[in-house]
Amino acid sequence: MKETVVVKVGGHLLYEMVQGKLRTMRIREYAEVFRQAAGQELRLIIVVGGGAPARIYIDAARGLGASEALCDQIGILITRLNAWLMLVALGEQAYPHIPASLQELLDAVSTDRLVVMGGLQPGQSTDAVAAIAAELSGARLMVKATDVDGIYTADPKTHPEAEKIEEASYEEILEVLWRGRIEAGRYALLDPVALRILERSRIPLRVIDGTNPQNLAKALAGQPIGTLVRPNQEA
Amino acid sequence: MKETVVVKVGGHLLYEMVQGKLRTMRIREYAEVFRQAAGQELRLIIVVGGGAPARIYIDAARGLGASEALCDQIGILITRLNAWLMLVALGEQAYPHIPASLQELLDAVSTDRLVVMGGLQPGQSTDAVAAIAAELSGARLMVKATDVDGIYTADPKTHPEAEKIEEASYEEILEVLWRGRIEAGRYALLDPVALRILERSRIPLRVIDGTNPQNLAKALAGQPIGTLVRPNQEA
Amino acid sequence: MKETVVVKVGGHLLYEMVQGKLRTMRIREYAEVFRQAAGQELRLIIVVGGGAPARIYIDAARGLGASEALCDQIGILITRLNAWLMLVALGEQAYPHIPASLQELLDAVSTDRLVVMGGLQPGQSTDAVAAIAAELSGARLMVKATDVDGIYTADPKTHPEAEKIEEASYEEILEVLWRGRIEAGRYALLDPVALRILERSRIPLRVIDGTNPQNLAKALAGQPIGTLVRPNQEA
Amino acid sequence: MKETVVVKVGGHLLYEMVQGKLRTMRIREYAEVFRQAAGQELRLIIVVGGGAPARIYIDAARGLGASEALCDQIGILITRLNAWLMLVALGEQAYPHIPASLQELLDAVSTDRLVVMGGLQPGQSTDAVAAIAAELSGARLMVKATDVDGIYTADPKTHPEAEKIEEASYEEILEVLWRGRIEAGRYALLDPVALRILERSRIPLRVIDGTNPQNLAKALAGQPIGTLVRPNQEA
Amino acid sequence: MKETVVVKVGGHLLYEMVQGKLRTMRIREYAEVFRQAAGQELRLIIVVGGGAPARIYIDAARGLGASEALCDQIGILITRLNAWLMLVALGEQAYPHIPASLQELLDAVSTDRLVVMGGLQPGQSTDAVAAIAAELSGARLMVKATDVDGIYTADPKTHPEAEKIEEASYEEILEVLWRGRIEAGRYALLDPVALRILERSRIPLRVIDGTNPQNLAKALAGQPIGTLVRPNQEA
Amino acid sequence: MKETVVVKVGGHLLYEMVQGKLRTMRIREYAEVFRQAAGQELRLIIVVGGGAPARIYIDAARGLGASEALCDQIGILITRLNAWLMLVALGEQAYPHIPASLQELLDAVSTDRLVVMGGLQPGQSTDAVAAIAAELSGARLMVKATDVDGIYTADPKTHPEAEKIEEASYEEILEVLWRGRIEAGRYALLDPVALRILERSRIPLRVIDGTNPQNLAKALAGQPIGTLVRPNQEA
Repeated sequence: MKETVVVKVGGHLLYEMVQGKLRTMRIREYAEVFRQAAGQELRLIIVVGGGAPARIYIDAARGLGASEALCDQIGILITRLNAWLMLVALGEQAYPHIPASLQELLDAVSTDRLVVMGGLQPGQSTDAVAAIAAELSGARLMVKATDVDGIYTADPKTHPEAEKIEEASYEEILEVLWRGRIEAGRYALLDPVALRILERSRIPLRVIDGTNPQNLAKALAGQPIGTLVRPNQEA
Repeated sequence: MKETVVVKVGGHLLYEMVQGKLRTMRIREYAEVFRQAAGQELRLIIVVGGGAPARIYIDAARGLGASEALCDQIGILITRLNAWLMLVALGEQAYPHIPASLQELLDAVSTDRLVVMGGLQPGQSTDAVAAIAAELSGARLMVKATDVDGIYTADPKTHPEAEKIEEASYEEILEVLWRGRIEAGRYALLDPVALRILERSRIPLRVIDGTNPQNLAKALAGQPIGTLVRPNQEA
Repeated sequence: MKETVVVKVGGHLLYEMVQGKLRTMRIREYAEVFRQAAGQELRLIIVVGGGAPARIYIDAARGLGASEALCDQIGILITRLNAWLMLVALGEQAYPHIPASLQELLDAVSTDRLVVMGGLQPGQSTDAVAAIAAELSGARLMVKATDVDGIYTADPKTHPEAEKIEEASYEEILEVLWRGRIEAGRYALLDPVALRILERSRIPLRVIDGTNPQNLAKALAGQPIGTLVRPNQEA
Repeated sequence: MKETVVVKVGGHLLYEMVQGKLRTMRIREYAEVFRQAAGQELRLIIVVGGGAPARIYIDAARGLGASEALCDQIGILITRLNAWLMLVALGEQAYPHIPASLQELLDAVSTDRLVVMGGLQPGQSTDAVAAIAAELSGARLMVKATDVDGIYTADPKTHPEAEKIEEASYEEILEVLWRGRIEAGRYALLDPVALRILERSRIPLRVIDGTNPQNLAKALAGQPIGTLVRPNQEA
Repeated sequence: MKETVVVKVGGHLLYEMVQGKLRTMRIREYAEVFRQAAGQELRLIIVVGGGAPARIYIDAARGLGASEALCDQIGILITRLNAWLMLVALGEQAYPHIPASLQELLDAVSTDRLVVMGGLQPGQSTDAVAAIAAELSGARLMVKATDVDGIYTADPKTHPEAEKIEEASYEEILEVLWRGRIEAGRYALLDPVALRILERSRIPLRVIDGTNPQNLAKALAGQPIGTLVRPNQEA
Repeated sequence: MKETVVVKVGGHLLYEMVQGKLRTMRIREYAEVFRQAAGQELRLIIVVGGGAPARIYIDAARGLGASEALCDQIGILITRLNAWLMLVALGEQAYPHIPASLQELLDAVSTDRLVVMGGLQPGQSTDAVAAIAAELSGARLMVKATDVDGIYTADPKTHPEAEKIEEASYEEILEVLWRGRIEAGRYALLDPVALRILERSRIPLRVIDGTNPQNLAKALAGQPIGTLVRPNQEA
């Protein structure tokens, strides 16, 4: 039976801020990586985030008086738009629509095709969606592609001495996130809810730099890249 | 019983191209106009178009190989995002979600609240959606807010001698659109499908300049502004 | 990969007016043609129209005061009834229900089975549904089975000198439809909306006489029968 | 609080067999009766059956090899078409669409409008649908309008000595139906499943001749007409 | 083509009353039987009933004033919970969710996997659901697993002289059920509605003792166990 | 305009463990409290948890090999069963069904009735559901009814010296939860995700002892009972 990996692709990876354009070239490269990996005994679920266009719409909505929950809802629509772009790039190998609930995700996964999705519900990050998808599909790994090359001991922007963590337990990473939260506003590299879900089902997580799509290929091939978050050794 | 008017708001009216920002100020003004009009024995259905963000996503999707129907689908998601912004601005007087089918529109309308929606199906413009909504709700008028102040005898950009039409029958306007189509690529001011729907149900249409929200107030108050398209006199 | 063809079967082909009976024999013959064609590397989407039973219900509804949009809705239910008959005749090779939205159509198509459907939304003809289905599925051809053997230069009932067109561009056929419209009430052989959709995606259309099911077999086998509508040569 | 009555209108009452036409005049009269009754402290749920058009489509489907369950499904679509006609005739006082599940029925009922529906599921008669609707809505009465003026001690067509029953318990009527079943093929005046549902919730049923719409007005006004089926006295 | 068998598993078989625990061991054995049978050219649809947990919730609901229809609805939720347990035990061979309508059942069946479901609608027993599912899927047999080893000439609890019936026609069994009903309150071994559905489609039914899962294996293998209900010989 | 309060009722409050019975008496008392409060300018959304029956089903599912996400799904079904009981007890004042998504919640809330719901999605506690519902509905308060009389500085079961907190900021409570987590396995009084949602929208939370329904009446009337969690003073 095929093994399943869930990949979370940060929305900011898909958008070129200065020119206000979508990075179709990079999307095409991701699609190529996914199609090739899926050919090698892998079942892939790809969860796409919101990024800059989400921020533009959410800022406007907040300015017009939207509740935070409604802002989330609007952000979810953008994640689905981004997911459509990925789906288009993947072509016929992909399941032909974007699951809007976990029920629809189960149907999609059972077709054995590449599945692409965005957010699901207000109050839930796309990290958490990816973690739940990993649980539901019995995934052996979750990969999170973002714009830094792993998790650091502190926010590298404000702590130049921060060091990249090669490997750590969920517990240790939760510590790091918790400390970062207290010090520096939200150091929002990773949603702790996602981490707890992965922890309870003992699914490892690899956080990688997705600005180079080849890093994704490496992570899917099992190479040690970025930061690996894993169950406690003794457990 | 309340009378119903359907208003189509062009998506380009909501977006400031150069700075790449949503026009929250203008959206707030529209909302104010709609709330006040709805207070005066009117039931309003507001259909919002896609505009520039739709174009950005559709261009990206087409570049990635999407079919035209899929491009439409992506455009529809953007119209719904735009509709959410309007809904937020309208606040508690509005029906709390965006109908995604005519069935849901009927439910929404039967609550007597302000209803906001975007597109429905590929191959169907938001003009056509507005026209169908007008039919289904027994509307007495459809207003189309765009960025010119009415329909001209030819495309004013390429024909400086073109004159604004104050009033004409559906038949005459279809002639104008047909001629414009042959000469100059698509002069896409108005979807002929929408016009035919309005014609079969004899619902008049007013095309106005929506860059000034007060024009909408005037059109809703029955003032002669822009171009009026109406049934043949003799019919 | 299989190629896709979309077939529109006019509802009037399924109903014997004088005796008020459904033509089960002919439906069985169509089914036989479709099953055999689908065996030869073809993926088929069959869109069925309304015909006489639709007219009976629509006339009653209009007499009771229904809006045109509601009449369309009622007509759509009849097209789905007709689609069920076709589905029953096709047996196990067919996808087991009638898509009621384009989303459901995508799911159906992705199973690689014979798909049967009727109308989708008020204000949209089944011709237009078939054209959109052709776009969404990347079809290489649409076939329209009706009760005349092609498109004529004018309505043959009122213009005995009218000649059948063997082959023409979308543009030329739109001209013919437009002229027919002006002269003679609606010469409703073909929905111009469908034609524009096919034009934008450059999908050819063949209009054939479906009273003989073997004509369908010929059209599916690529034989030159009826009228072919195609992109401009130079394009 | 308003009281609820459920009315089952037999589909054969809506259709003129010989001319193959829908009885729009009679539908309009029913609608008038329903609108007036609903004005008098009554909440009405109207369940419409299939009649002759259902038979035409079901016979065709069975001829093409449909399972009985599929035939039921097709019949259900016709009951919904008939329900649409009634809904159109009722106009603005009616809930604007046809509930397709009991969940949707609950939503409809909670709006306090006239609700019209057809069948729900294969294997379930519209009599049974009406009985369930009566239970779910806490109705105080179900009325069944058919083309005989009540329940007889035997099938009056084959037993001229049969007598009309003025009033009886569910138990007694089940006896009559059971005997009729054994003797004479199905004497299908009434679905025993419906009767059992009414019995368990102690909702009385009145069976009346609906060919004269005024009989419905009488039944809704509480006049003793047709046959009354009621709980056992001692219970 | 695979043949289809529908199995109804009584909810009381899954629950140990005294200790208030679900019988996970027995569920695992059923799952084993189903997985093996499905490997041998069989397509299986498994319909699970409610049992003791349904009674606990229904009693509470009735005590709080729920209508009978609502009690049914609550019971249906429990049948779906039970169905989820079975689905979990079946693992990857099973369709990944519980059909909540016949439409969803058709989709599920068309995947050729093991399908598990519970109830569908108030007023309809899970016996009736299983019978409809048998019709819709063209099943060649329905098996009902309960806690007695077949149908007796009378309720064996109150009639010690009652004898087990090896084989009988639908008609004869309906007689038995009818007599039992009159004498002794509801002798609710079997829903007559289910029997009538099986009768109209001539699908035989085998009633077996499911407390030993191996009996199910025997019934699926075609061995003569329990009571067989079948069409009349002459028909 | 009415103010909104969201009440979370712990599932364990509804179930008597030893006798394995639902506490219908207590449910009736809650309903009485809710109906009276709703009469006083309050709009109420009641979110019900799972409790012991959830645990029984989840344990069985886990024993059969269910993923954690599936266990959550099963737990959600139980929360909805519990919600149905509350809904039944509330009677006609309640919205007639259980929202299964935030979209459905918005519809329910817009009817101004008492709304009852359970869980929504795997990986999301009913605490989090209640917090999101509070955000979406613009609630001024969330009340959590559980079986202790507030939040303590440590788990009172293992730390006899722990003291009840009368009032604290979200930040301070998150500290307490975090410390509890490290020391003593999960001190799962409150889902931190819920707290973060309330924090971002500045909605205060009151945690009370719900074993006495009158405490709920007090909390709804604004009396200082249990623990109040509120925004930072300076913010």
